[in-house]
Amino acid sequence: MYQCFLFIFLKRKVNDNVNIDSFISKHSKEALKNDPPGEWMPTIPDGCIRLSSGYPAPHLMPVEEIKAAVASLLEEEKDLPLHYLGSPKKKKLDELIQERLTQRGIQVSEEELLITSGACQAIDLIARILIDDQTLVAIEAPTYMEAIEIFQNYTHHFISIPVDEYGLQTDLFEDLLEERKRKGLSLPRFLYTIPTFQNPTGTTMTEERRKHVLELAVQYNFLILEDDAYGELYFNKQSTPLKAMDPDGRVLHVGSLSKVVAPGMRIGWTVAAPEFITAMAWFKKDLGHPFAQATMTAYLERTDMKERLETLRTTYQAKCSVLLSALEEYVPKSVSWYIPEGGYFVWLKVAADTSELLAQATEEGVSFIPGKYFFLNQEEGTGYLRLSFSYADEKDIVEGIKILGKVLREVE
Amino acid sequence: MYQCFLFIFLKRKVNDNVNIDSFISKHSKEALKNDPPGEWMPTIPDGCIRLSSGYPAPHLMPVEEIKAAVASLLEEEKDLPLHYLGSPKKKKLDELIQERLTQRGIQVSEEELLITSGACQAIDLIARILIDDQTLVAIEAPTYMEAIEIFQNYTHHFISIPVDEYGLQTDLFEDLLEERKRKGLSLPRFLYTIPTFQNPTGTTMTEERRKHVLELAVQYNFLILEDDAYGELYFNKQSTPLKAMDPDGRVLHVGSLSKVVAPGMRIGWTVAAPEFITAMAWFKKDLGHPFAQATMTAYLERTDMKERLETLRTTYQAKCSVLLSALEEYVPKSVSWYIPEGGYFVWLKVAADTSELLAQATEEGVSFIPGKYFFLNQEEGTGYLRLSFSYADEKDIVEGIKILGKVLREVE
Repeated sequence: MYQCFLFIFLKRKVNDNVNIDSFISKHSKEALKNDPPGEWMPTIPDGCIRLSSGYPAPHLMPVEEIKAAVASLLEEEKDLPLHYLGSPKKKKLDELIQERLTQRGIQVSEEELLITSGACQAIDLIARILIDDQTLVAIEAPTYMEAIEIFQNYTHHFISIPVDEYGLQTDLFEDLLEERKRKGLSLPRFLYTIPTFQNPTGTTMTEERRKHVLELAVQYNFLILEDDAYGELYFNKQSTPLKAMDPDGRVLHVGSLSKVVAPGMRIGWTVAAPEFITAMAWFKKDLGHPFAQATMTAYLERTDMKERLETLRTTYQAKCSVLLSALEEYVPKSVSWYIPEGGYFVWLKVAADTSELLAQATEEGVSFIPGKYFFLNQEEGTGYLRLSFSYADEKDIVEGIKILGKVLREVE
Repeated sequence: MYQCFLFIFLKRKVNDNVNIDSFISKHSKEALKNDPPGEWMPTIPDGCIRLSSGYPAPHLMPVEEIKAAVASLLEEEKDLPLHYLGSPKKKKLDELIQERLTQRGIQVSEEELLITSGACQAIDLIARILIDDQTLVAIEAPTYMEAIEIFQNYTHHFISIPVDEYGLQTDLFEDLLEERKRKGLSLPRFLYTIPTFQNPTGTTMTEERRKHVLELAVQYNFLILEDDAYGELYFNKQSTPLKAMDPDGRVLHVGSLSKVVAPGMRIGWTVAAPEFITAMAWFKKDLGHPFAQATMTAYLERTDMKERLETLRTTYQAKCSVLLSALEEYVPKSVSWYIPEGGYFVWLKVAADTSELLAQATEEGVSFIPGKYFFLNQEEGTGYLRLSFSYADEKDIVEGIKILGKVLREVE
């Protein structure tokens, strides 16, 4: 759909008597030069096995529970959740999220918390309050493609720091910062990082590197935007979020219920110093989502999340194992990957241009996301691809990897 | 809550070692100098009659119908509406909104339509794609306070054009445009107008003025942002939206289901040239609201909206009559108002500072919105207040106006 929009945009710059282009704001024009949003999203034929989709497993979606939550909510509160304001559940959601954050080692007061329409809106609002058009932003290479899209709407000044199996390479980051400082170049205003079960690599930053990056933030005076969308989905042990190790408010922590409840409900949040939260709320003009938020509250009130998370962890760990075993069995020996300790993703290094590979793969019956979309400099990602073990069932995962193996062998 | 945030913001500019202010982007800092969002919202004691709330009548909220819609949706589509993408209802919602727009005389293709989280998000996205920090924006005086808040996040350059009982005074607007042109001053990039059952005046622009403003848009080369949130709630006859009279795409039309179904669902839209829609979608980073949108679709599919709208019109017309009769009976003769032909609001001119009056009124048991919040230059609104007949029931409306009358007589 977005590609279709772009086509129209290029084709019809002048709409009869109205020169539309002349009305578009300067900063928007600059952003509109980027690739259109969602360009990374593959066209997936019916019946194709979706190893591209970072969606929760369909059978883990709480369909009946959401239905029951809505019924009980409207029984109890009548019209209140359907108004702009008025449902007592709004305040209750804040409390429930605060409780969840305690499980991640993060103590948060009401004025340090903002509920958003998913993590993406949180990242966008943070970008909005922090980025000027000359602001330098540090990101991981590779990183979450939606975050690249968002940041590029605000600035074209980036540094990318490579990620390896232990997460962000903080030594390389330090070298880069030191060099920029020595040369009198600007330093980043913030680092965007997904320290735990990163999207797309699935890797996790070691505790040592976490400490290091927090020291660097103090030394070089930058903020850290920590994306913790996958943090609760560990297979064996929990990692401490940067926010829980942050003594003086340098970390803006973003979380979401998308991966553990349902992305379609659009419930995410930011934890940050009250000044940042105030500024973000200033620009959040959707007036909240009373019905979705109240429904989620009613769902959480009726759900043993500890038990649910254990089910999710066990299920995703099993699916991950199935995918890893299938990789061992079916892909050429030249292909390598990191072993994730949680989350949704496995990141493959292959001897092929994965963008070119995609059409053939989907035709044969399996989808993935080509690596290039996860890099600011897309060429760096040519030989990589992201697989997700979250959505497809175990049988399809095996079948999908078989197909991928076949496709990869053909291009070797 | 926002006021509490502001307090913290002023008090804690330096958070230990982190100089938070130094990280905030320039455009945000500029916006943060404005009054905080929601400052217009009165603190309403329990039991106070809410003539301030522009909410739908509680008994007209489709509580049971939404419950049934969710149940049938999840029965039919299972997990699909809980994912990021996948519910067939998303496309269906576009079609249903297109159908609704046809009733307003607006033919719209898919690429001219963007579903948003209510009208406010639509206005914000339009502001984002059209306004640079030096852009001049034309607004009505008075106008919707949320729109003023939104536009002030982007620019401080405005012209206000007075509204009378026939809507925007296009002759005055023409004089102003002509004068600015003669003096070599900048012309507005767009006019924001609520031509039908305006918020807050309740007045409606005549067809003659509608034609005139469209001519002015061509002559002085500006766009028109038409807010049609109340257009379907006419008592006797429908007004033709500007968008339906717009030959060459100068009008960006914003609508919403908030006033006719439920604001808590957050379903609004923009109709505009595809180039504008593309640009708006570029900056809409909440990833849509699959569950809310699918629920609304399921609701609309099961609802005879023609019949529902007739019920709403009859109910609001009756409530409006009750309010107008109560005004005739209970407020001092010095008070005057316009007779609305639809919508939610009655706009009162009184011989008092309505901001000062509010505390006393809420203490006595009735709330309203002081006029100042609807003006860019707040002093212009001192002697006005907005009443809403939509939310309170008829008995409370009478009681509320009795109290208001008493409070007004005391200050005369």
